Amino acid sequence: METTTKQRLVLAAMRLFAEKGYQSTSVAEILKEAEANAGSLYHAYPTKQDLLVAVLEAYREGIAPMLLAPAWEGVSDPIERVFALLGAYRRMLEASDCLYGCPIGSLALELHEPDPPVREGLAVNFDGWVGHVRTCFEAGRDRLAGVDPHRLAVLTLTIMEGGVMQSRTQRSLEAFDIGVEQLRDYLDRLEQAASAGAITERPGGRS
Amino acid sequence: METTTKQRLVLAAMRLFAEKGYQSTSVAEILKEAEANAGSLYHAYPTKQDLLVAVLEAYREGIAPMLLAPAWEGVSDPIERVFALLGAYRRMLEASDCLYGCPIGSLALELHEPDPPVREGLAVNFDGWVGHVRTCFEAGRDRLAGVDPHRLAVLTLTIMEGGVMQSRTQRSLEAFDIGVEQLRDYLDRLEQAASAGAITERPGGRS
Repeated sequence: METTTKQRLVLAAMRLFAEKGYQSTSVAEILKEAEANAGSLYHAYPTKQDLLVAVLEAYREGIAPMLLAPAWEGVSDPIERVFALLGAYRRMLEASDCLYGCPIGSLALELHEPDPPVREGLAVNFDGWVGHVRTCFEAGRDRLAGVDPHRLAVLTLTIMEGGVMQSRTQRSLEAFDIGVEQLRDYLDRLEQAASAGAITERPGGRS
Repeated sequence: METTTKQRLVLAAMRLFAEKGYQSTSVAEILKEAEANAGSLYHAYPTKQDLLVAVLEAYREGIAPMLLAPAWEGVSDPIERVFALLGAYRRMLEASDCLYGCPIGSLALELHEPDPPVREGLAVNFDGWVGHVRTCFEAGRDRLAGVDPHRLAVLTLTIMEGGVMQSRTQRSLEAFDIGVEQLRDYLDRLEQAASAGAITERPGGRS
């Protein structure tokens, strides 16, 4: 399938916004990167913000095929899938010398008081991510000692984003790794509590 | 004590960078807010980045007197102090309709590839915050089942920053609250493990 000019514009904007930030990226740079002319840009996306909304939509559509599918290949345990996803972010940090982590998080904090369609596009991305991770925790629900899968999914996004922020600033994977390892310790303790609960409940359950 | 022009410039820049972001704030706005003239600005801070470095230094110096002292007033339990600090961020979010959370975190993600003095100023703020929270966990070390106080302090900053980011985007305290509540659940489980360990160890310890 041929890449359309619209697709090239969105991909170029994705790359530049992630690398340089939204406000630091000029329309001229986007045109150069996309090998497009101003007329086709303004026809498809009358304002830079319209292009940002399209970028956020592309990220949302990309979560399953671009992020989750490669991270989860060969990983069937639902809780290991959560850590496989966090591992994909770690690889992005590592490959970029801790410069690029999560483009959505960067945009979320770069844009102070974003206009409603942008804020909505960011929120939809966070919600989509949390929804996918929640399905993992729901599938492993009997190992979580009654803790709500939705709360664990929000905590996972919180730890990913907070870890990426610190690792970018410190130019070191340390903070990201600590967050993930302590999440692992927390989940291990839930799992121990769940199996201890299952043992003590068993006599009653068998009656 | 009289406020000097330099202090007014730093305070004005602090306020504007936190509200609008660094790149969106113009020098003209800073001068207007500080009621200063361009000559005194350029004399004290030749570039906008020099002013940003001064702002980051002011935040670092302000952690103990401006942030911790009011949050910890009347709170003596070291682990409750951690939650009192998180409560101070919650109040900032709540008072601003989830617009302003942590100014350091916002700057950390707004500035892609910041110049070394800026990156250093951000890192020093994160390190200072983690150091203060680590002293709390060190003081409560016997309740933490052997988990390293430094790791718990990094996790706390991670959860604060990741929660603020989501709450700002969602314009809702939900994600921030979930992160803090799950941190509480994790620490409660550590405390239970520590007291269970203390009980089982006691017979040997008494011999």
